[in-house]
Amino acid sequence: MANIKPSLAKGTRDFSPLEMEKRNHIFNTLKTVFKKFGYNEIQTPSFENLSTLTGKYGEEGDKLIFKILNSGDYLAKAPAELLESSSANKLIPHISEKALRYDLTVPFARYVVMHQHALTLPFKRFQIQPVWRADRPQRGRYREFYQCDVDVVGSPSLLNEAEFILIYNEALAALGLTDFTIKINNRKILTGIAEVLGKPELIVDMTVAIDKLDKIGLDGVNKELLERGFSEEDLETLRPIILLAGSNLQKLDSLKQVLASSTTGLAGIQEIEEVFAYIEAFGASSLLDKIVEVDITLARGLNYYTGCIFEVKTNEVAMGSIGGGGRYDDLTGMFGLKDLTGVGVSFGADRIYDVLEELSLFPSSSAASTQVLLINFDKALESYTLRLLADLRKVGIAAELYPAAVKLKKQMSYADDKKIPYVLLIGDEEVNSGELSLKNMLTGEQRKLGISALQELLQNKD
Amino acid sequence: MANIKPSLAKGTRDFSPLEMEKRNHIFNTLKTVFKKFGYNEIQTPSFENLSTLTGKYGEEGDKLIFKILNSGDYLAKAPAELLESSSANKLIPHISEKALRYDLTVPFARYVVMHQHALTLPFKRFQIQPVWRADRPQRGRYREFYQCDVDVVGSPSLLNEAEFILIYNEALAALGLTDFTIKINNRKILTGIAEVLGKPELIVDMTVAIDKLDKIGLDGVNKELLERGFSEEDLETLRPIILLAGSNLQKLDSLKQVLASSTTGLAGIQEIEEVFAYIEAFGASSLLDKIVEVDITLARGLNYYTGCIFEVKTNEVAMGSIGGGGRYDDLTGMFGLKDLTGVGVSFGADRIYDVLEELSLFPSSSAASTQVLLINFDKALESYTLRLLADLRKVGIAAELYPAAVKLKKQMSYADDKKIPYVLLIGDEEVNSGELSLKNMLTGEQRKLGISALQELLQNKD
Repeated sequence: MANIKPSLAKGTRDFSPLEMEKRNHIFNTLKTVFKKFGYNEIQTPSFENLSTLTGKYGEEGDKLIFKILNSGDYLAKAPAELLESSSANKLIPHISEKALRYDLTVPFARYVVMHQHALTLPFKRFQIQPVWRADRPQRGRYREFYQCDVDVVGSPSLLNEAEFILIYNEALAALGLTDFTIKINNRKILTGIAEVLGKPELIVDMTVAIDKLDKIGLDGVNKELLERGFSEEDLETLRPIILLAGSNLQKLDSLKQVLASSTTGLAGIQEIEEVFAYIEAFGASSLLDKIVEVDITLARGLNYYTGCIFEVKTNEVAMGSIGGGGRYDDLTGMFGLKDLTGVGVSFGADRIYDVLEELSLFPSSSAASTQVLLINFDKALESYTLRLLADLRKVGIAAELYPAAVKLKKQMSYADDKKIPYVLLIGDEEVNSGELSLKNMLTGEQRKLGISALQELLQNKD
Repeated sequence: MANIKPSLAKGTRDFSPLEMEKRNHIFNTLKTVFKKFGYNEIQTPSFENLSTLTGKYGEEGDKLIFKILNSGDYLAKAPAELLESSSANKLIPHISEKALRYDLTVPFARYVVMHQHALTLPFKRFQIQPVWRADRPQRGRYREFYQCDVDVVGSPSLLNEAEFILIYNEALAALGLTDFTIKINNRKILTGIAEVLGKPELIVDMTVAIDKLDKIGLDGVNKELLERGFSEEDLETLRPIILLAGSNLQKLDSLKQVLASSTTGLAGIQEIEEVFAYIEAFGASSLLDKIVEVDITLARGLNYYTGCIFEVKTNEVAMGSIGGGGRYDDLTGMFGLKDLTGVGVSFGADRIYDVLEELSLFPSSSAASTQVLLINFDKALESYTLRLLADLRKVGIAAELYPAAVKLKKQMSYADDKKIPYVLLIGDEEVNSGELSLKNMLTGEQRKLGISALQELLQNKD
């Protein structure tokens, strides 16, 4: 076999034990919250038929889908003229019929359509799985990364939207974040604004421009709006909307005046008000003062969402959004099942990881799985030590014996590296007295205690 | 967008909530046991450089590796003559540089070599991730399936082998299996037998033949041995070995006599004896009588293993092996890091799933994540109900309100389908009295109780 110096594929990562513990801390926290709100887990395959994915993510998205080469003689069905002319793009469907999952939404839509007769609606599911994109890797952008999606299909009730706000709040608080903002907008409000301006056909241009307010400021937005076909008069009308300020209620009141002539726009405002009413009924009105923020410049995924739109950002660290979502009234239409409404949100696990790391919010016990290392002094003592090891494990304590009687220093540094909190030193004296020497690796403190006291201490530690 | 009737890619599966609960039950049980024995989790990327995987699984294996098409103009570097001659195999390295993980062992070896300077040896890791093989799908064989591997590198101690027996025993028992056999053999015993016969070069032929004893019987094995170059005299010598019977100790004693002239063979026997001594020191000698079985016809992965070899089968259901593994003295040699010993075992999660299903061993609560459904009678009652819902969740109870005031029958069947064990009926009477009506969906029993009694009941249920 060739002697290759191995490397990772570009844009991918290994996760070592410490990273896995931290990642699992995030995933488990999310799962616990999702389940508490009645969501059940599903998983879909890593690869789908290429035809299931193609055309769902726009032309740019299609390019970023990883295609899997057919197995066997994959060129057998390839037209000779495409090979001879090196027509890479046209050749793809002839040599590849499968592709890696690009997101969790399209596979979920496929799942709902295929299982529609077995599903009880509303169907509430969460899904935490990797997705793959042939993006150019850069800091914080990987070719393999996890998405954490939670969606409900078949329920038009705005109770769902309200619960997503609660889910965001509870999950992020459980992860230790204390200052974050959940932005809310509604596609119908954006439609209403374009209507009031008399330019409904320019809604996409309008939202693309005002979405950039944070980055390019009002002058930049105005310049872009003019370029995209709006008039100076439109800018006058838009200014108070773009610069909307005050409490959420004040913002909604101002919007009602501006959108008085648009039924659609008023419907969008009313949807947000209903979501807020649900939050109040849940006894969580403090969220509306502190965490939830009406932001009509929020326009993510406009081609997709039809009702409420969400985006979440932390205010403790400079970081893009750590979550987002919204309602899409035709989730499954792409697969021929019409009029099935869906609403859902997503958590950006990789970004949340970076935020928690920067704020040192991972629990310190994250690193430890083994709670106690039994030092191996002597082959002759092994039988005593092994019996003790078995007894510790019997009561659920994660324990291990260093597998060779090497120098103490080496065994101690094994415990250190593995972040094992306790070490048990068992010599002849200990075997005779039954009193074991336990060293706390964090404090360095060493004490003697009997087996039952030891078990109790380690179990409480857990 | 085209109106496609969606389907799954061949050989792949969706996992619906009930299946996910059952799968997670298996994975969580394994993880708990692995951690108790001091193993930490790692994950490696789903795809590796093609060169990392090629040549590690034999010629047949290479064909079963899923290759990923390069992105962009993947034909740009493809030699014209290979395109024109449709040389599919030779073209692969020019158009694909990445491939999906085929097993967890080669990526783990790659991981160990790349992280060697950061790893403290012995390094004990477990890994539970999907792998992909371009096999022809059939009943029980999928193109995407999970492997659950637990390995230690850098420790020659046979304590590890002994602990793998404990791990198998504890994990399978925790899953509810009561009758299974952990077979053990040692590559050195097989080498010794071939030496005693004076035909060390025929060891592979020999083991391939005797490995088939279960299927083709002694006559079949003998016929094959003759075809493969053994003499009638060899068969005489082999017969008592192949038909080895009695207790494990009797088998080892017989082997010692047959292998008296082979140092390697005796070393293999001694290794098994040392493993057994460890098991006894753990206070688990009953395993040696009932569950562990010396089986010298066991030869899986011969080209690979250098010491002990394991295979596990259940005796309750007709099913192939549900686990196996062994020691390999040169795990990382393929990547240029020599003399690093490894030993590990694997659990076949998909087969274990089928076994537990057939024996009805999944916990009945598997299906439930939501513990109580609050029936939605009336928009007017929502504010009371939502407050109650918030209170239930506050104490950790998974609860949901049906998101619309539809017919009771529909809401009850939602609870039924989702296997929610309790339903709360809240009407005007309940709001006024504060006594809630709780229906047990399993027994049909309905009772009245206050909020704190309700919380207590549902928390204990958990």
